[in-house]
Amino acid sequence: MVRVLVVYGPNLNLLGEREPRLYGRETLDEISARLRQLAATEDAEVEFFQSNSEGTIIDRLHAARATAQAVVLNAGALSHYSYALRDAIAAIGLPVVEVHMTNIDTREPFRRRSVLSSVCAGVVTGFGAYSFALGLRAALDLIRREAR
Amino acid sequence: MVRVLVVYGPNLNLLGEREPRLYGRETLDEISARLRQLAATEDAEVEFFQSNSEGTIIDRLHAARATAQAVVLNAGALSHYSYALRDAIAAIGLPVVEVHMTNIDTREPFRRRSVLSSVCAGVVTGFGAYSFALGLRAALDLIRREAR
Amino acid sequence: MVRVLVVYGPNLNLLGEREPRLYGRETLDEISARLRQLAATEDAEVEFFQSNSEGTIIDRLHAARATAQAVVLNAGALSHYSYALRDAIAAIGLPVVEVHMTNIDTREPFRRRSVLSSVCAGVVTGFGAYSFALGLRAALDLIRREAR
Amino acid sequence: MVRVLVVYGPNLNLLGEREPRLYGRETLDEISARLRQLAATEDAEVEFFQSNSEGTIIDRLHAARATAQAVVLNAGALSHYSYALRDAIAAIGLPVVEVHMTNIDTREPFRRRSVLSSVCAGVVTGFGAYSFALGLRAALDLIRREAR
Amino acid sequence: MVRVLVVYGPNLNLLGEREPRLYGRETLDEISARLRQLAATEDAEVEFFQSNSEGTIIDRLHAARATAQAVVLNAGALSHYSYALRDAIAAIGLPVVEVHMTNIDTREPFRRRSVLSSVCAGVVTGFGAYSFALGLRAALDLIRREAR
Amino acid sequence: MVRVLVVYGPNLNLLGEREPRLYGRETLDEISARLRQLAATEDAEVEFFQSNSEGTIIDRLHAARATAQAVVLNAGALSHYSYALRDAIAAIGLPVVEVHMTNIDTREPFRRRSVLSSVCAGVVTGFGAYSFALGLRAALDLIRREAR
Amino acid sequence: MVRVLVVYGPNLNLLGEREPRLYGRETLDEISARLRQLAATEDAEVEFFQSNSEGTIIDRLHAARATAQAVVLNAGALSHYSYALRDAIAAIGLPVVEVHMTNIDTREPFRRRSVLSSVCAGVVTGFGAYSFALGLRAALDLIRREAR
Amino acid sequence: MVRVLVVYGPNLNLLGEREPRLYGRETLDEISARLRQLAATEDAEVEFFQSNSEGTIIDRLHAARATAQAVVLNAGALSHYSYALRDAIAAIGLPVVEVHMTNIDTREPFRRRSVLSSVCAGVVTGFGAYSFALGLRAALDLIRREAR
Amino acid sequence: MVRVLVVYGPNLNLLGEREPRLYGRETLDEISARLRQLAATEDAEVEFFQSNSEGTIIDRLHAARATAQAVVLNAGALSHYSYALRDAIAAIGLPVVEVHMTNIDTREPFRRRSVLSSVCAGVVTGFGAYSFALGLRAALDLIRREAR
Amino acid sequence: MVRVLVVYGPNLNLLGEREPRLYGRETLDEISARLRQLAATEDAEVEFFQSNSEGTIIDRLHAARATAQAVVLNAGALSHYSYALRDAIAAIGLPVVEVHMTNIDTREPFRRRSVLSSVCAGVVTGFGAYSFALGLRAALDLIRREAR
Amino acid sequence: MVRVLVVYGPNLNLLGEREPRLYGRETLDEISARLRQLAATEDAEVEFFQSNSEGTIIDRLHAARATAQAVVLNAGALSHYSYALRDAIAAIGLPVVEVHMTNIDTREPFRRRSVLSSVCAGVVTGFGAYSFALGLRAALDLIRREAR
Amino acid sequence: MVRVLVVYGPNLNLLGEREPRLYGRETLDEISARLRQLAATEDAEVEFFQSNSEGTIIDRLHAARATAQAVVLNAGALSHYSYALRDAIAAIGLPVVEVHMTNIDTREPFRRRSVLSSVCAGVVTGFGAYSFALGLRAALDLIRREAR
Repeated sequence: MVRVLVVYGPNLNLLGEREPRLYGRETLDEISARLRQLAATEDAEVEFFQSNSEGTIIDRLHAARATAQAVVLNAGALSHYSYALRDAIAAIGLPVVEVHMTNIDTREPFRRRSVLSSVCAGVVTGFGAYSFALGLRAALDLIRREAR
Repeated sequence: MVRVLVVYGPNLNLLGEREPRLYGRETLDEISARLRQLAATEDAEVEFFQSNSEGTIIDRLHAARATAQAVVLNAGALSHYSYALRDAIAAIGLPVVEVHMTNIDTREPFRRRSVLSSVCAGVVTGFGAYSFALGLRAALDLIRREAR
Repeated sequence: MVRVLVVYGPNLNLLGEREPRLYGRETLDEISARLRQLAATEDAEVEFFQSNSEGTIIDRLHAARATAQAVVLNAGALSHYSYALRDAIAAIGLPVVEVHMTNIDTREPFRRRSVLSSVCAGVVTGFGAYSFALGLRAALDLIRREAR
Repeated sequence: MVRVLVVYGPNLNLLGEREPRLYGRETLDEISARLRQLAATEDAEVEFFQSNSEGTIIDRLHAARATAQAVVLNAGALSHYSYALRDAIAAIGLPVVEVHMTNIDTREPFRRRSVLSSVCAGVVTGFGAYSFALGLRAALDLIRREAR
Repeated sequence: MVRVLVVYGPNLNLLGEREPRLYGRETLDEISARLRQLAATEDAEVEFFQSNSEGTIIDRLHAARATAQAVVLNAGALSHYSYALRDAIAAIGLPVVEVHMTNIDTREPFRRRSVLSSVCAGVVTGFGAYSFALGLRAALDLIRREAR
Repeated sequence: MVRVLVVYGPNLNLLGEREPRLYGRETLDEISARLRQLAATEDAEVEFFQSNSEGTIIDRLHAARATAQAVVLNAGALSHYSYALRDAIAAIGLPVVEVHMTNIDTREPFRRRSVLSSVCAGVVTGFGAYSFALGLRAALDLIRREAR
Repeated sequence: MVRVLVVYGPNLNLLGEREPRLYGRETLDEISARLRQLAATEDAEVEFFQSNSEGTIIDRLHAARATAQAVVLNAGALSHYSYALRDAIAAIGLPVVEVHMTNIDTREPFRRRSVLSSVCAGVVTGFGAYSFALGLRAALDLIRREAR
Repeated sequence: MVRVLVVYGPNLNLLGEREPRLYGRETLDEISARLRQLAATEDAEVEFFQSNSEGTIIDRLHAARATAQAVVLNAGALSHYSYALRDAIAAIGLPVVEVHMTNIDTREPFRRRSVLSSVCAGVVTGFGAYSFALGLRAALDLIRREAR
Repeated sequence: MVRVLVVYGPNLNLLGEREPRLYGRETLDEISARLRQLAATEDAEVEFFQSNSEGTIIDRLHAARATAQAVVLNAGALSHYSYALRDAIAAIGLPVVEVHMTNIDTREPFRRRSVLSSVCAGVVTGFGAYSFALGLRAALDLIRREAR
Repeated sequence: MVRVLVVYGPNLNLLGEREPRLYGRETLDEISARLRQLAATEDAEVEFFQSNSEGTIIDRLHAARATAQAVVLNAGALSHYSYALRDAIAAIGLPVVEVHMTNIDTREPFRRRSVLSSVCAGVVTGFGAYSFALGLRAALDLIRREAR
Repeated sequence: MVRVLVVYGPNLNLLGEREPRLYGRETLDEISARLRQLAATEDAEVEFFQSNSEGTIIDRLHAARATAQAVVLNAGALSHYSYALRDAIAAIGLPVVEVHMTNIDTREPFRRRSVLSSVCAGVVTGFGAYSFALGLRAALDLIRREAR
Repeated sequence: MVRVLVVYGPNLNLLGEREPRLYGRETLDEISARLRQLAATEDAEVEFFQSNSEGTIIDRLHAARATAQAVVLNAGALSHYSYALRDAIAAIGLPVVEVHMTNIDTREPFRRRSVLSSVCAGVVTGFGAYSFALGLRAALDLIRREAR
């Protein structure tokens, strides 16, 4: 069965509490529940992982080679400087979809550039929690295309 | 009924012929047909517009205020320098979803920055023709959220 | 009789509707009417031209050599990147007064530099619709100075 | 009665002698006389102030809050680096119109950026001594608009 | 029979009148006549196209795939910012020779970089109207080399 | 009772041994003891936390919302690139006082910019171990001001 | 007896009136009075000096060698470009504590860099009028440390 | 006896599997075995450490002061941004030899600059797994030179 | 009789052997032979000079004032940094045509800028060995134009 | 009789006391005395002026038009940012020789660029107090050359 | 038999005399003698070449194709700007090992970038004269790897 | 007896013929003759050396250690990029006075920075052939100061 890993990076555990004007009032558990439903309607499974530590996320991506066919990744602020994370994405050989809830081009300059994008399959930004749903659809499409 | 305008910018009329390694073998008509199907399953309508001229696209965006509730826009290379198009997007007051078929972060430096992104609602890049489908879903979600 | 061409660039046809906080509530027709009055008190004539297309504006500037002695130009966002428009201004040999309704130095970085300014006779920025009146006076002064 | 302060910055006391190819042959007294005439036809008064010292100009701008409703300012080369002057403009709460006799965009690179512009109401450049007349008109218009 | 399209961009219709110190006194028609002669001596045909509009030039380049085997292109100031034109050159699959009458390296900074050069076969600059003749010879050589 | 968390970032555990010319000969324990004394005289409590890991520090800051009213933070070299730490500071809603023992403006260029400063309440730099005492005073003052 | 000079730079004479949202409603006299009290409790004396002229401030710093053992300095906008002031600080051989009322890292880009910091003993920013009190404490600590 | 610590940074645990075109087919265990042999022939000992976490590597470098006389370090992508790692190298007072398997100057721009190099004793890049052997020889030479 | 000097710079002696994918398989002698033929048909003479040393090439350009009326120059990589060569070109007063076999705009960044171009009469790039033929034609045209 | 004004800028009154490692132990009076001697042997007169205020120096340069034929100027740190001083130099129409005692290229980056140099006749740097003697000789040579 | 060419660039003939704090007290002859010994123990031969002239070094590298299988190169300051040398390295098709005695990342900014590195096989920096020995070992390893 | 070497770099052999508007009409021999006279009046000797080759100039500077006590150097355009020449100056341990005939700050941007200045004793620019005389005086003064 098709299986996608969803990774939430630093500070996403505070979703719903943190700066709700920017990130909305939905918690991470609520978002995950909705993604699980969407996966079910597409005959797929999702697993979730959250961490505030770069090294721990890298370990988890390495392990994903044995448990998933694609990754949906919101790396939080690590997106803007973690070249080690970038190397992990390039190394594991799975398609990774980068996701941001806000439109990063409307925010602080340092957020306008992601060092991960050029090793990801594609990017979705700006649609709040719905960005994750679009990212999951994109990941499933990539798996199916490769399966053909 | 909900209605979305899909705008294709310069050189997209050559899709299917032009650099297929980058853009795939599907023609613009085939892509449009699939978007029309997706819209139907979501109780929505789509209209399509292609032009190689910046001024003509601006005229069409102005007109969209009377005919659509959201726009899906692939402005081609104009994305990277047309501040006039950017002003048109900001002026019409409709949510615009920016779409790119390729992952622009893996291409030439000038393509890595879009001058449109910061006035669009959100951005989808890198999933080939499927980027348009994700963009259409995002546009419909934005219309429904505003309707609430 | 002295005659001045007033050119309005991309998106100025939306004046009065578009971002009134920035551009005020007066429409383009109302502004033109007031300029016609001012011209009359100065024994001069004005003609008006609006287009969203760079090439069409260039054609009109070329033609102006036969119909006017000076130009007042608000090129909208083209001011910030259209080197072709810049060449047209340099080529026609008429004095051109660049006009902006807002103080472009208080806005987004890309608006702080106009590629047209160094081939124009002078620049007026920041006084709303009244910028056009000041620009027209400047144009008339330039014509008279050359006539001496 | 409406009253406008006109401030002339460093080296403007040499007008008429200094680089006449750039600045013309009119002296500062002649320019002031013409501005006084223009003010009279508009039922307004003008006062003039020249200094080569940044601190003295700042003192004069502070004092202007009690004697004028707007300022016309040609700060000479201070325009390009005096953040202290910029702070004074922001602090006094009067509309200030920045004026340059030459088109600064056609001159040395350091002159192309004014650090004052973004705290001024607007800018007029390039029309020789006539720039002051346009600046005075703009200042009067700003006072009247606020009076409404 | 071998056939080459020669494209003249914005403001080239003014050749002979515009800044003759830079561009010489020959008109566009005179230049075209000389190119037609040169083509005849080389058993080739040339067709000519002039426009001030970016979109129209892109349309013409698309059409050239059916009518010519190579293109000689002087895009005027569009050379310095039109990424849409650049995409059109890359898309049509014909060899394009970029031509400038002046030595662009001796002119304003913005003219020293052409965004078209890296998708053209080669570049000729600095020999006045004779640049077009050299460009035509280069285009014919490219066609013959590919024919071998 | 008022309670402040003091966070020591990477390599601060080596204080007293590491580059004493720059950081002095006092150890971290001695500094903490002195801060505890100062807190006592101000009727406040302090808790201390040291880690060399970005993710662990972020976890601790999240937890501080339940145990402290303000934070004194010396993030070591993480100050210069950890946008994830910056997001954590912005997210927790407590006032954070940034502290550096050395005057970072007199050191290597990369140390002259802290990516944390713009989300902190204030910054104290350059007074050796005494910087922590000033930072603690500032934190206590911030708590009391909010309490009023 | 220990004695500290407090220097207030350009525009600080307007404190209490100027942009109170940024700088609070306390006047310079009120701030000075509170500093005098603090000094008294620490068995120290303070003297105060305000000027809008760079040269006058430099003269006063030169003179301070005979009357004070340390300086607390808020140089206003001069902080951002006055290398002459910087040289004066380096020349007099007294410890100087740089003070800013606002957190300069949250403001306009030109304010984020102080050219004085690298010749000052340390910097305090962001605590409103209380920044001066912290600065005075730091200055007294520096004098005592040197006395040991 | 002489003892050297060899540290392998993020993603090096995947050696042999990850991008073999760049990094070869040898695994980390095979490389370590060969280094152990080389050390034996030089009467030295080596110990090995791999981690994907910046903080854990810093902890290990701190501990090395008690167990080794020099370090051979391949910090992976952390080389390009981890100023905290840089501080740890500067703090421990042991000579550190920086090693890269690929010639980083032939790769992406962000890899061309290492923020560690200027606090390391020297650097070896570009010789695949053999870079480690050269790095070990360099480390032994540094220990011997200091011993003299 | 008309006479042109053709100068080949560093590494061009390896033509035919060196990186044939970029520079083709023709040797320098074969290219020179073809240029001699072309010159003959145009009633002109050519002389050739190759050197790998900047100073020697400068000496030869100085001498050319006595032996030729124009120069065709491929300075190899010296084109990108030899300001001494540039000064020599400006000093000798002969028209110099700069030639590159490859389209330097499609290569490494340092090759995209030639420091010679702005003192040469014009530039030809991208047509392989045929670039020399076009350069020779350009040189002859320049001599004839001056002769008129 | 030939007459030269020597201007000493901010902080030069401290010469002999201030950082003698850089500037030597000679006082300003001793330097002036030696210049007066040199002038006497060359049948010329010198006058001296020192000020720490930018505005006062500008006033003095304006006055020099009536009393001297050339100026030797050491503007101290004003050299690096005072565009007002630069304008004064350009305005007075006298040849000005810029002098620095130290070799400014060996010092802090901000001292490596003088904003005055491009409006001065020439520059002498690096020879301590002897730089003034060389500057005076250069000034006398310029006066005599103009007199011819 | 395996044979390596060792090239010493400008100013290396002064080794032992020149700045011994940076480069040590060993002369070039002593270094060469030690390399000859090392080569002997590895059944290899070395030849040596020193020149202060870029062109002469290029000539020697061209010739090396007939006499050696690899090159060890310390190009001195030419490393930082000689693109002609870079082209020679790329042209000869032999593996070249770049060597620096000092850690160039701890020195002046211009020395931190070598324009040769990206066409060399690898780089060794920072180990004094021992850098040459490591470079020679690397060169021998490259020859053997290719031989397999 | 005191002895100074005067070195003339690339293209200076053309003095008197080359761009006389910039460099005057005096030839190199005439300049040398005048320097010899000046030296005689100062009881000193001068020797002269001209070359267009960087390597040859470096060789000559090395040799100067045995024949001169100081050097006057006009390196022509090599001043702006020859780091090898810079290293030679630093290596020989003699004081070198850098001389330019023109005021390099008024010329092309690349001429405004000399890479030699920071290792020279001082710099003289802008006084035509008289710059050499001032440079010689400076060199003699440096020798005498060291002799004391």
